[in-house]
Amino acid sequence: MILRIKSQFIEIFNITLKSNKRSMGSQITSKLVFQNHGPPASVVKLVDEPITPLRPDEVLVKMLAAPINPADINTIEGVYPSELKLPAVPGFEGVGKVVNVGDNIKELKPNDHVVPLKETLGTWRTYAKFPGHLLLKVPKDLGIVQAATLIINPCTAYRMLKDFANLKPGDVIIQNGANSAVGQNVIQIAKRMGLKTVNVVRDRPEIVDLKCTLKNLGAHTVLTEEEVKKTDIFKKSLPKPKLALNCVGGQNALEILKTLQEGCTMVTYGGMSRKPVIAPTSALIFKDVHVKGFWVTSWNKQMFKSKKWLQMYNDLINMMLKKELKVPSHNFIHFKGYKEALEKAVDSKGYQKKFILNFD
Amino acid sequence: MILRIKSQFIEIFNITLKSNKRSMGSQITSKLVFQNHGPPASVVKLVDEPITPLRPDEVLVKMLAAPINPADINTIEGVYPSELKLPAVPGFEGVGKVVNVGDNIKELKPNDHVVPLKETLGTWRTYAKFPGHLLLKVPKDLGIVQAATLIINPCTAYRMLKDFANLKPGDVIIQNGANSAVGQNVIQIAKRMGLKTVNVVRDRPEIVDLKCTLKNLGAHTVLTEEEVKKTDIFKKSLPKPKLALNCVGGQNALEILKTLQEGCTMVTYGGMSRKPVIAPTSALIFKDVHVKGFWVTSWNKQMFKSKKWLQMYNDLINMMLKKELKVPSHNFIHFKGYKEALEKAVDSKGYQKKFILNFD
Repeated sequence: MILRIKSQFIEIFNITLKSNKRSMGSQITSKLVFQNHGPPASVVKLVDEPITPLRPDEVLVKMLAAPINPADINTIEGVYPSELKLPAVPGFEGVGKVVNVGDNIKELKPNDHVVPLKETLGTWRTYAKFPGHLLLKVPKDLGIVQAATLIINPCTAYRMLKDFANLKPGDVIIQNGANSAVGQNVIQIAKRMGLKTVNVVRDRPEIVDLKCTLKNLGAHTVLTEEEVKKTDIFKKSLPKPKLALNCVGGQNALEILKTLQEGCTMVTYGGMSRKPVIAPTSALIFKDVHVKGFWVTSWNKQMFKSKKWLQMYNDLINMMLKKELKVPSHNFIHFKGYKEALEKAVDSKGYQKKFILNFD
Repeated sequence: MILRIKSQFIEIFNITLKSNKRSMGSQITSKLVFQNHGPPASVVKLVDEPITPLRPDEVLVKMLAAPINPADINTIEGVYPSELKLPAVPGFEGVGKVVNVGDNIKELKPNDHVVPLKETLGTWRTYAKFPGHLLLKVPKDLGIVQAATLIINPCTAYRMLKDFANLKPGDVIIQNGANSAVGQNVIQIAKRMGLKTVNVVRDRPEIVDLKCTLKNLGAHTVLTEEEVKKTDIFKKSLPKPKLALNCVGGQNALEILKTLQEGCTMVTYGGMSRKPVIAPTSALIFKDVHVKGFWVTSWNKQMFKSKKWLQMYNDLINMMLKKELKVPSHNFIHFKGYKEALEKAVDSKGYQKKFILNFD
């Protein structure tokens, strides 16, 4: 995806960049930082500091957008298995515009749009220096929100659909928390793969609207948690699912696990109910149901820039460009309003709303 | 294992057998039968009937011994996913002596010891006609109990140690219900593979004796359910386990699952606590722990007489002949005392004691 362009023009351009670099010392970055773990709205502070000179392998990026994800919240709270050392800048995801590149960086140039690929880089800041090899160049006509939310949710959905079952067009999958960001990605990617999705959501006053929204994204069936317990669709109109995706846990995970075909897998990628996964002994022994988990951070680390990895980003970006993969609902908020965003993103019930920080 | 012997002598011998067959009609078999599912001691009845003539592919076997297994009990109760059609003779396992063979049977002869290989054949009877291809010839110097209990517990232990982790000498495995018949097989087979076993058992008045018994079988460590919760052996003296074997479920299964290395598997083959398997969401996602089940009946069906299958029986029989694999404690009882055996094998707490029916 990163094109290597060599020309005399680039050489001249690099000389211009180098002279730019000397003036960077006087520029300021505003960053959000936490020194200690704790409630995000309390421990995160805004700090201004000068931008130090670029090293040869670094790229200076002006951030355009960075979401507040559950993993960010949990990392700040100290309940996420992150490699971050404190003090740290939060922000797993984001998109930025290249301002300047180090002498060794040949594959990026100013104004390129880039996505930081490692969750510990810290995207919640106006300007950041990132190692060049940890940036993915993305097309400029890819929406800012699409790019800023590319590396966690769409990748999680994509990998779970590809790696845990041999799915063919016409096959059925079931998921709970189907209205989550990953859930909505699952519906759309599954549709493109020719799969039928059975989507389980919590009942709510606006359930008809929600069902309609998910149907419009490509959901085959949408059922509430109560409805899935007594449904007869797997006896009448649909084959049993070959894959179950769980981000809820507890009784709800058990209900979707029970619908699986023999020898199939339930993949857990979240635990919104804060209850563990329960598997009946008989399902494990006599139905050979497998219970596994998926963590995109771990997958990315293992498969970084492999053929599969490149294929995935190609597919996802193409789907986004063709409007086959839409982003879930979200609210923009200026990063200086971070306290309000953090309070609203995480209330007493846990993570609630998706906010995307912007920096202009 | 079944040797094909061809000689003129065999031809003459077969003629003798055929003349024997004609007299079989007057012989009687006494069999235990159940017409309906229910409490084993109530629904199982003793029935005598004449032995009908052998078909060309059948073998007439005089049963020598047949155990009462939990799977037999559950099958009679109607809570086991068996293919048996009622009325049926119970008995998954057993060993018998060949009395007579059908015209097409070349690989067995009278007096051979054979083990029926399919759990629906019904071993709780004095004489039975079995399809020849569903019999395994075993050495006569293999003990009667060893042969009668070969196809469920030792195979379950063997496959779980071979198929769910890439275990090397020095690796550690953990199991609960370590005093069960499978558990004792696991200890002995693991020892022969050079593995270290951490064995979890329920606390009981004679706990020191039990620990000693399991140590003598080759257990590296024996811990009670309370002890495993607070043990520091995986911090101090042993690497974390690469495989967990669970026949208990509930909290106890959770405790052994928690000790696993990243990316490893817990295999469930029983649920003695009658509680389901619980897996914390974080272990599934961040530790990539896999939760699976194993059912020897299903494995046998899939792998029947494959290379792996033959290798397994060879290994197990050799271990038994060398006294490296001892049978768990058991009581013989004459099959006419089946009511008492069934009552004692299964009391209000479920399956308690291993009884082996004999038929002389």
